[in-house]
Amino acid sequence: MNDDDFSRASHAHGKFYGELLKLRKGEIQSPPDLVIYPRSEDDIIRILEVCNKNKIAVTPFGGNSSVTRGVETPKGGISLDLTKHFNKVLEINTINSTVTVQSGMYGPAFEDYLNNFGEGFTCGHFPQSFEYSTVGGWVAAKGAGQASTGYGKIEHMVLSLKVITPSGVIETKTYPASAQGWDLYPIFIGSEGTLGVITQVTMKIHKHRPENTKYASFIFKNFESAVVAMRTAMQDGIGLPHLFRISDPEETEIAFKTKNFEGTLTDKFLNTLGYKSGNRCLMFVAVDGNKAYVNQVIKSIKNNNKKHKAFFIGASPTKKWLEQRYSSAYLRDPLMDLGIMTDTLETAVMWENLIPLWSAVRKYLKAREKTVAMVHISHVYENGANLYFTFLSPMKKDDEINDYLLFHKGLVDTIHENKGSLSHHHGIGKTMAPWMEKELGSESMKLMQAIKNHLDPNGIMNPGNTLGLKP
Amino acid sequence: MNDDDFSRASHAHGKFYGELLKLRKGEIQSPPDLVIYPRSEDDIIRILEVCNKNKIAVTPFGGNSSVTRGVETPKGGISLDLTKHFNKVLEINTINSTVTVQSGMYGPAFEDYLNNFGEGFTCGHFPQSFEYSTVGGWVAAKGAGQASTGYGKIEHMVLSLKVITPSGVIETKTYPASAQGWDLYPIFIGSEGTLGVITQVTMKIHKHRPENTKYASFIFKNFESAVVAMRTAMQDGIGLPHLFRISDPEETEIAFKTKNFEGTLTDKFLNTLGYKSGNRCLMFVAVDGNKAYVNQVIKSIKNNNKKHKAFFIGASPTKKWLEQRYSSAYLRDPLMDLGIMTDTLETAVMWENLIPLWSAVRKYLKAREKTVAMVHISHVYENGANLYFTFLSPMKKDDEINDYLLFHKGLVDTIHENKGSLSHHHGIGKTMAPWMEKELGSESMKLMQAIKNHLDPNGIMNPGNTLGLKP
Repeated sequence: MNDDDFSRASHAHGKFYGELLKLRKGEIQSPPDLVIYPRSEDDIIRILEVCNKNKIAVTPFGGNSSVTRGVETPKGGISLDLTKHFNKVLEINTINSTVTVQSGMYGPAFEDYLNNFGEGFTCGHFPQSFEYSTVGGWVAAKGAGQASTGYGKIEHMVLSLKVITPSGVIETKTYPASAQGWDLYPIFIGSEGTLGVITQVTMKIHKHRPENTKYASFIFKNFESAVVAMRTAMQDGIGLPHLFRISDPEETEIAFKTKNFEGTLTDKFLNTLGYKSGNRCLMFVAVDGNKAYVNQVIKSIKNNNKKHKAFFIGASPTKKWLEQRYSSAYLRDPLMDLGIMTDTLETAVMWENLIPLWSAVRKYLKAREKTVAMVHISHVYENGANLYFTFLSPMKKDDEINDYLLFHKGLVDTIHENKGSLSHHHGIGKTMAPWMEKELGSESMKLMQAIKNHLDPNGIMNPGNTLGLKP
Repeated sequence: MNDDDFSRASHAHGKFYGELLKLRKGEIQSPPDLVIYPRSEDDIIRILEVCNKNKIAVTPFGGNSSVTRGVETPKGGISLDLTKHFNKVLEINTINSTVTVQSGMYGPAFEDYLNNFGEGFTCGHFPQSFEYSTVGGWVAAKGAGQASTGYGKIEHMVLSLKVITPSGVIETKTYPASAQGWDLYPIFIGSEGTLGVITQVTMKIHKHRPENTKYASFIFKNFESAVVAMRTAMQDGIGLPHLFRISDPEETEIAFKTKNFEGTLTDKFLNTLGYKSGNRCLMFVAVDGNKAYVNQVIKSIKNNNKKHKAFFIGASPTKKWLEQRYSSAYLRDPLMDLGIMTDTLETAVMWENLIPLWSAVRKYLKAREKTVAMVHISHVYENGANLYFTFLSPMKKDDEINDYLLFHKGLVDTIHENKGSLSHHHGIGKTMAPWMEKELGSESMKLMQAIKNHLDPNGIMNPGNTLGLKP
């Protein structure tokens, strides 16, 4: 355990843009009083007992990549860092095709372990925060990886889990599916530390066969036709691609510019064919699995895209994008140095509301002077998809924090009013908490609170309005 | 509303074997005092208000196909029959690929409506009780249909729902996926009427293209190799068949006998090739969807089965089985007339525990004199499958009920001790309730009870230990 200034400060905030701004001003409000690295489940049980008795706040801490103020400790107390001693794979079962892993294990170490076990496995979960996130964080924040269209979001991967709550230890059994009352493990997926400490998770694994993976890239004449092609592919019973992604026109143009593609002969040729800059959209596809399956899905997507006038541009743009897929987040700090605010927000939306939501949010973003607004779809379902917004805009000097928070509030309001969820995979934390009751309704919030009150009667778990819960 | 004897008696029991035995003796214990057919959600809200105030039991009632004493009314009160006025499709959204349907609609009417809407849709849910079950019952009891391997179990089909509880109305929003705290709709899937009245459900739908469906049937040398073939197909990333089914050797032999196949030239030929009666096993496969997908999945399964020495016997056995798939349950009553008890139990199990569980249960069943024990796997996942047991045995004369209940208890104990779930899709009801705490653990039961207490503080919803809950 540590109570030095550095440990406390480094456990006092995540990666929310507002937090980064405050950090630059040297502001750290209410850090935890103590950082504890528990060595065993018994440690955690004892810590929760003492804290519950004395009403001391406990905030579980993993890779610290939260962009929603999920790990902020407004009531101080204890930050329970699981990355030091809860970072092992407990069992791989190749017959069941499952892995049981401790919650504090980082993404790369976990995936590496799976890749190198036996004939090679993968968990298929590659969030943008992959390098700085843990299995427990994936589950607690209800994340999604870049291959989620094929492998599913984290809630589709988890089979069972173990959680230490102030009321007791809940360990659910591992079944492929069952009918013995309602499932309890889903209650902890998205619980964001408010109910207890997730210590281990049993998840599905899959054969790791990168040599079978096929890639395809396309250009569409406009966003609308790309979205229809994506939707109809998802609804045509052709199987699932693993990576499935469209960039909207502005994001597509920026991709073209940064890859020095603008003005090339191919660029001119595409413009002549009607794939005009400012309208055209990039689509990336990758499919994993059995060779015959991979070939069939790629071919079916090609056929479907043709109907929507897509131009096939080969495998390499998708491959290149995959190579640098984790790096764009690291641009945020250098841009701040230049006085540019940049942030991302994301939502889930049913297909029929997707274009209207996209238009409304773009309108909102573009109403701010000199704002760049890039949008993509990166997690796709039969019934809808996510929309992921990245914006860059000059900061208002000497009023950066308020400027940002006000702009952010208007953006979330616009998403909410246009039938988008508050989040598809970033989670709620404390940032989105003010919208929760409006979004879920009061009876749903009461049900969440009742569950919280049962498991955490003294309100010690990640307090401070996380998820809109009391305290 | 009705309070005549016939209405009360017909709402006092479901289709549990023990109930049927009692009915034959003219025993109906504690029928509901009143059967109400609510006309609107406002009706239900008012009924629950009055009943909650006066602590009158309310049991939601649908198709009445429960085999777990799920609709029995040990505390009398009101049976709330939703089949008369809550039987409409409210909206089909072909862009989102969803349907919103009232909970009292019967399977055939629902499927028929979908098949005939626009270009034709299906919900893909065909439980054995299809003809006598409702959408609300599917959700409340957490059912699975015969094409669940491809379309999913009911919990994979539901996107949102509306529930009227004694505490208030909960309506969840429809998103393809989201991350705004833990999902609340799963709490009502498998709630078996203990939390409130499900009034409407929004589900995924799919294109209905029976002309694309392909069928394949195989014979394996033994159960073990059939199970390995099934497991490896599910774990090889080839896509999913929709119907995927194996009969164990005893069920296979009975199928051969009842189809007058025994002793034919083909039978002799198969025996010569090593597919010996008493060991060999039937596998049925059907795949729906896009033509290219269907061809690829069937071909991949054929290739995989070859490695496990399966003999391909064409499409027609699977087709024939599908034609009579709902009828076997109707044999139970005629067999009772002949003094034969027959019942079914089912469980979910991880792959590594499947053969040991199958052996242990068969041993238990066969220890009873002259007992026929047929087993099949009919709902398959990457990580495990269900096992479905059908047994026929002479009843102990004049002690039929005790004889049956004792035999049933030993059977459930055997399943539980061999790592099977208490149910894969029949649910718990009151029959399996005594095993719930042992199966889930006390902390999980406390969490379920806390949820129940919040939504139904006076314990009026389907009382009598349903799901092992109080009261």
